[in-house]
Amino acid sequence: MKCITLLTDFSEKDGYPGIMKGVILNIAPQAVIIDISHDIPPQNIRHAAILLARSAPYFPAGTTNVCVVDPGVGTERRGIIAQLGSQFFIGPDNGLITLLYQRAVRDGLEIHIHALQNPGFQLSPISHTFHGRDVFAPAAGHLAKGVTLSNFGESVSDPVLLDFPIPTRTDQGWRGEVISLDAFGNLASNLESRHIAYPGSAEIRIKDRIIKGLNQTFAESQPGDLVALLDSFGQLSICMVNGSAEKSLGVRVGEPIWLIEN
Amino acid sequence: MKCITLLTDFSEKDGYPGIMKGVILNIAPQAVIIDISHDIPPQNIRHAAILLARSAPYFPAGTTNVCVVDPGVGTERRGIIAQLGSQFFIGPDNGLITLLYQRAVRDGLEIHIHALQNPGFQLSPISHTFHGRDVFAPAAGHLAKGVTLSNFGESVSDPVLLDFPIPTRTDQGWRGEVISLDAFGNLASNLESRHIAYPGSAEIRIKDRIIKGLNQTFAESQPGDLVALLDSFGQLSICMVNGSAEKSLGVRVGEPIWLIEN
Amino acid sequence: MKCITLLTDFSEKDGYPGIMKGVILNIAPQAVIIDISHDIPPQNIRHAAILLARSAPYFPAGTTNVCVVDPGVGTERRGIIAQLGSQFFIGPDNGLITLLYQRAVRDGLEIHIHALQNPGFQLSPISHTFHGRDVFAPAAGHLAKGVTLSNFGESVSDPVLLDFPIPTRTDQGWRGEVISLDAFGNLASNLESRHIAYPGSAEIRIKDRIIKGLNQTFAESQPGDLVALLDSFGQLSICMVNGSAEKSLGVRVGEPIWLIEN
Repeated sequence: MKCITLLTDFSEKDGYPGIMKGVILNIAPQAVIIDISHDIPPQNIRHAAILLARSAPYFPAGTTNVCVVDPGVGTERRGIIAQLGSQFFIGPDNGLITLLYQRAVRDGLEIHIHALQNPGFQLSPISHTFHGRDVFAPAAGHLAKGVTLSNFGESVSDPVLLDFPIPTRTDQGWRGEVISLDAFGNLASNLESRHIAYPGSAEIRIKDRIIKGLNQTFAESQPGDLVALLDSFGQLSICMVNGSAEKSLGVRVGEPIWLIEN
Repeated sequence: MKCITLLTDFSEKDGYPGIMKGVILNIAPQAVIIDISHDIPPQNIRHAAILLARSAPYFPAGTTNVCVVDPGVGTERRGIIAQLGSQFFIGPDNGLITLLYQRAVRDGLEIHIHALQNPGFQLSPISHTFHGRDVFAPAAGHLAKGVTLSNFGESVSDPVLLDFPIPTRTDQGWRGEVISLDAFGNLASNLESRHIAYPGSAEIRIKDRIIKGLNQTFAESQPGDLVALLDSFGQLSICMVNGSAEKSLGVRVGEPIWLIEN
Repeated sequence: MKCITLLTDFSEKDGYPGIMKGVILNIAPQAVIIDISHDIPPQNIRHAAILLARSAPYFPAGTTNVCVVDPGVGTERRGIIAQLGSQFFIGPDNGLITLLYQRAVRDGLEIHIHALQNPGFQLSPISHTFHGRDVFAPAAGHLAKGVTLSNFGESVSDPVLLDFPIPTRTDQGWRGEVISLDAFGNLASNLESRHIAYPGSAEIRIKDRIIKGLNQTFAESQPGDLVALLDSFGQLSICMVNGSAEKSLGVRVGEPIWLIEN
């Protein structure tokens, strides 16, 4: 079984992800293709990078993650194919792999990155607006068939990496910020369990709101309550029980969050 | 082929169903995973129970239906794995299986229900908010690999069952009610073909509207007409041709429907 | 591998496409089922015909495309199964295959069309409102199992075909029109590369707007700019960079587009 995941901002309305699957199956009929999401906010590379880093670890070794959020499509920006430990990544070289790459570096995993240059592994002609179909899906198919990375193009030593904000120490604890919003309006921050020494007595401040102590579950609070908890990916999140913290607080990505420990 | 269906209220926007698939394929690479829906209205167990009962009969014997609408996630509520006749169900024990269970009892099918307790068939650590990934998807994977129900945990004899409303006899016919609304604004009721002796002359009343006779098809009426018909699951439904009966009538689940036969 | 694609206006909210997949897998467990889209605007046969013609060429030979946009469900309209070259089509006979059929005729491909009449390859009973489940999905399953076209029903020589508008010559160039809108608000027209002799100097007029020259990429213009380009399917499209040309111009399918070449 060769598993290939797809993560894009194409939406499924117009059939673009389906077409990518057709291209893959044409080349590698045995591929098992799984959708992560096609509803990334348009051109939001940062949000896609976070979802990619969250989902990839749950897939089998050997999985290829095709991620296409690509505002630079048709320009000179590179396409890349990367081995990061036991998995592969295919997409534009615009920072989508940032978090997976940093994790692979930190954990001392095997890293190989090559440019997607070989026209033998691309559709012809290549359109200027749909490299998901013409470049990235074919690369995934040929990789699944056994083509080695060096056959796709020259080695890349300087992949584009994004600056993700890092929490900073304060007198009383940490200053972090909101890094992503989910469909329910939950606010995920860059603060993690390792920043929180005393979950029971921690105080979270966001805008003019103060949340005392971390919840373990939604169910221990009342509908409409604003709560803080470590979400299922280990990130400190601000949520409204049965509601949207995003709408209720009117916040966006980048909003500061203070963690205060007494 | 081991078929596994997924039915949740997670939406596909943030990649949660995709992550569940990764967990399943990691354990059972040969599984064929089919989405029923991930757009159940948030925490609407009742609606999910109806969709589950509608879809399961169309899947092959041996299919495992993973259904996660789980307002109690992280509390003491049980997770269960159930054999109901030739299929399996995995999810929280909150009534999602009500209709399938009642049908299995009525038809004298084999029924075995066990709690999901064995940590050997769960991810570790288990989050407090995403048991779809940490408990239910792994159970589906291990079941597909051949683990027997009794290995997951102790036998359960008292699964949570919801009270679904039952039509009542009136002088002139039956009183039923709206039990679900679909994406098109069609109103499905708990009245079925067996309640309707004379479809041609039956009169349907809902709010201040009277519908005379049942349609067989939408096409025999005009756009904008309010019609009653037996839907493709055998339930009496109120629909607006090329429109939304839900919006037009301003009704919700629980709205009474009178069937009058002269 | 037998690949089966699905294209409908059912939405995935209520589980209808999932149920079709259950029916197919019940008959043909080895089928690989790929969604093209389930968000065709309700009953928009024309839009579905365009998406079908765009997506089918990217799928392997032998693929069966099941397309169900079916305002006439339950009436006397025929269901058909068609071989058009190396692929198959299954759905109502209402014009969905128009573009694929015309292409097959133009290219001299093998064409065989049969009515779906044999009750042995349908569910029983057949509902009046969900032939996707009761007629078309079973046909796809039985075809994947090797049933030949003539076994489904009698030969059809007069499939329903829609009139798609054809560009007309003007003194200065061509008059075309908008034929589809995508989820991003891009306007695809029936003008194609063969209509455009000088892409650099071509002038595009739509409503009161004039666009000078064709872009190759979005990136060469500024956010908010209205641009014309040949999209990834070879059609002249009007797009707003990082915006919606549909909303900005307030246009619909059928809006005239003038191509002026000096």
